[in-house]
Amino acid sequence: MAQTPATPALGPAKALVCRECGASAALGPHYACEECFGPLEISYDFGDVTRAGIEAGPANIWRYRGLLPVPPNVIDTPNTEPGWTRLVRADHLAESLGIRTLWVKDDSGNPTHSFKDRVVGVALAAARELGFKVLACPSTGNLANAVAAAAARAGIRSAVFVPSNLEEQKIITTAVYGGTFVTVDGNYDDVNRLASEIAGEQDDWAFVNVNVRPYYAEGSKTLGYEIAEQLGWRLPDQIVIPVASGSQLTKIDKAFQEFIKLGLVEDKPYRVFGAQALGCSPIAAAFKAGHDVVRPVKPDTIAKSLAIGNPADGPYVLDVARRTGGAVEDVTDAEVVEGIQLLARTEGIFGETAGGVTVATLRKLVQTGLLDPDAETVIINSGDGLKTLNAVAPVARPSADIAPTLEAFRASGLA
Amino acid sequence: MAQTPATPALGPAKALVCRECGASAALGPHYACEECFGPLEISYDFGDVTRAGIEAGPANIWRYRGLLPVPPNVIDTPNTEPGWTRLVRADHLAESLGIRTLWVKDDSGNPTHSFKDRVVGVALAAARELGFKVLACPSTGNLANAVAAAAARAGIRSAVFVPSNLEEQKIITTAVYGGTFVTVDGNYDDVNRLASEIAGEQDDWAFVNVNVRPYYAEGSKTLGYEIAEQLGWRLPDQIVIPVASGSQLTKIDKAFQEFIKLGLVEDKPYRVFGAQALGCSPIAAAFKAGHDVVRPVKPDTIAKSLAIGNPADGPYVLDVARRTGGAVEDVTDAEVVEGIQLLARTEGIFGETAGGVTVATLRKLVQTGLLDPDAETVIINSGDGLKTLNAVAPVARPSADIAPTLEAFRASGLA
Ligand SMILES: Cc1ncc(COP(=O)(O)O)c(C=O)c1O
Ligand SMILES: Cc1ncc(COP(=O)(O)O)c(C=O)c1O
Ligand SMILES: [Zn+2]
Ligand SMILES: [Zn+2]
Repeated sequence: MAQTPATPALGPAKALVCRECGASAALGPHYACEECFGPLEISYDFGDVTRAGIEAGPANIWRYRGLLPVPPNVIDTPNTEPGWTRLVRADHLAESLGIRTLWVKDDSGNPTHSFKDRVVGVALAAARELGFKVLACPSTGNLANAVAAAAARAGIRSAVFVPSNLEEQKIITTAVYGGTFVTVDGNYDDVNRLASEIAGEQDDWAFVNVNVRPYYAEGSKTLGYEIAEQLGWRLPDQIVIPVASGSQLTKIDKAFQEFIKLGLVEDKPYRVFGAQALGCSPIAAAFKAGHDVVRPVKPDTIAKSLAIGNPADGPYVLDVARRTGGAVEDVTDAEVVEGIQLLARTEGIFGETAGGVTVATLRKLVQTGLLDPDAETVIINSGDGLKTLNAVAPVARPSADIAPTLEAFRASGLA
Repeated sequence: MAQTPATPALGPAKALVCRECGASAALGPHYACEECFGPLEISYDFGDVTRAGIEAGPANIWRYRGLLPVPPNVIDTPNTEPGWTRLVRADHLAESLGIRTLWVKDDSGNPTHSFKDRVVGVALAAARELGFKVLACPSTGNLANAVAAAAARAGIRSAVFVPSNLEEQKIITTAVYGGTFVTVDGNYDDVNRLASEIAGEQDDWAFVNVNVRPYYAEGSKTLGYEIAEQLGWRLPDQIVIPVASGSQLTKIDKAFQEFIKLGLVEDKPYRVFGAQALGCSPIAAAFKAGHDVVRPVKPDTIAKSLAIGNPADGPYVLDVARRTGGAVEDVTDAEVVEGIQLLARTEGIFGETAGGVTVATLRKLVQTGLLDPDAETVIINSGDGLKTLNAVAPVARPSADIAPTLEAFRASGLA
């Protein structure tokens, strides 16, 4: 293991607790329960957290450092500065779907243009304190970009592992940051398994989504905090969230719960909806069947960033959706493309396929009556269309190709 | 002309004034002086502008609405919300160049990931008040994205004209927003000329960079305002800015001057440096030759977003650089690629070619002694590497390609 201080200074984080059996462990570079192998989660002692204290912080996720497992001086150590992305009122999209009040949390404004910058920023801060020297991950794209960029900015080494058949554009956008970047002849599951094996050998490598996952995952809470703060310190009635491993969804719910307990927002019911692509919707399938367990699937969808067939947080997503009166729904790849176009055409926001999944799911939830069109709703656009151009290439075409003359323009009928 | 109100409500904007002969004209849809055909610029009556008033505004360019030619209610009409992008301390880049204090203003965080969202946001707000119905432009890429996105969000029609040989990825990222999108069989100069001709015929089309250019250009002032405010209401000693038409550079200087006159920052000397690619550096050439006029060139560089051979604001860039004790410098395409890589590897920021031009120019200015390495310096990253992947594709390669086994990893020598 890394050379971890006996009592790592990770702000309000006090211990690790097993999500399954409740056993607790000291803060450290652990991710699985010693009793039952269940996933470990951070437990906190928040003390006094105030709106004014948060508002006085920087315009990025570090304004919430008092609620994250990071050293108090996180602002003074080199890291990326993700977060505080736009929460935009989406009246045209709302109108086209027959919804009254709709907001888009647009996380494409992050440093590498996906919400992964949030989780990686927190993982980096924690990993450094835990004594790790290298920031690593298996990834299919967004995480690779975020890890390579954050390590570069921090001045430490990165080690990123991806399937060799990854799109050329994702290769370039990771390689440009330098660092160790390995393509692996296999699918994502193979890469993931290899990463776990390497983590077992390389003492001081922090694989953000493997051996420091409990810390990493907490970064997604900042999406929930920001939404509440940007709404004027209150919770929305409904929220629709894209789901791969299910971590983001469960952490947004956790953020809302924490804000309620801390008295930062009024306690009120809210409903959480998960969005999946039909080509990889093990959690939606379990939700609809009324199951508590999630049966793994082999992914086959254009929404590659959501293509996790065996989602680690699947059961917890089911819990949250059922507890809050939400649902988990899935949409076809054709609907995903329509969703991307709809968001772009109504709000000028070009989301990646995960955004398309979310918008299409929102539409479906309205049509099926599961989502109340009169209640205030927030949706997450978690990534950027520039990274998944292939998905819309066939449908995003020019209106006309003309000669460079006024006559040609007149003849085009576009005047 | 568009159906313009007799006295358009454009906030502090009071009149149009010719930059050449000083003749003034009423606010309206004009861009060239009736006396001498010189470019028109906005003149203002600011009244009382305070730090507190600005700080109370939203985290986007509209916090400066009291300093822009836009209606006072601009916040309540649908528009994009660009700006308030990160100003990041760049210690690693500084160290590698031997500079003491360096900041990167990273404008890739804007809605369509370039500074063009700023100018388009202002153009849209003004155009609507001036009575225009369609938002249009000739473009080689970034502006096309920004116009199509902003019009979509505003719920109005866009009409974007680009050369047909534009990269496939820029076609997709414009077409996805819907709107009228015409590829023109010619180069950018042909497209630009055609746009002027169409503007003469289509009464209610606002070509942002043609017939509403005086309003549009003011949007770049927000880059200067933000830098000063984010530094804690003070000016840097030196700033390096990429230059195509030269508008951004001259408006950042204008913003600094306005802040000084309004007493929002202390008056102090600062030096403005322009950055060009050698394959299109008419202003750097004029600067070095000591000329006042800029001789047009035929662009040939990978920095396509800066490839304007006949820059409208060229003489004004020369004025600013000379007045402030700065310079205009140029770098080779190979240096541009190195600049992109250096920024990515040291700070985790993947800029487009324009960013590479700026970083490479910074390096050259230090080497030649024109820039003081001990004085506080800001550089602008005005666009996103995801839009110019081809520039780094040959050099951004993986470290290794391996089989999915621990043995293969060990054999790679990367452990
Ligand atoms: C763009 C994007 N959105 C959403 C998700 C879903 O995240 P989670 O695994 O936390 O459910 C991912 C995960 O990779 C992603 O890349
Ligand atoms: C990314 C980027 N940076 C800088 C510039 C330079 O802008 P200006 O024409 O105002 O000099 C442009 C102009 O197109 C651009 O696209
Ligand atoms: Zn356990
Ligand atoms: Zn004149």
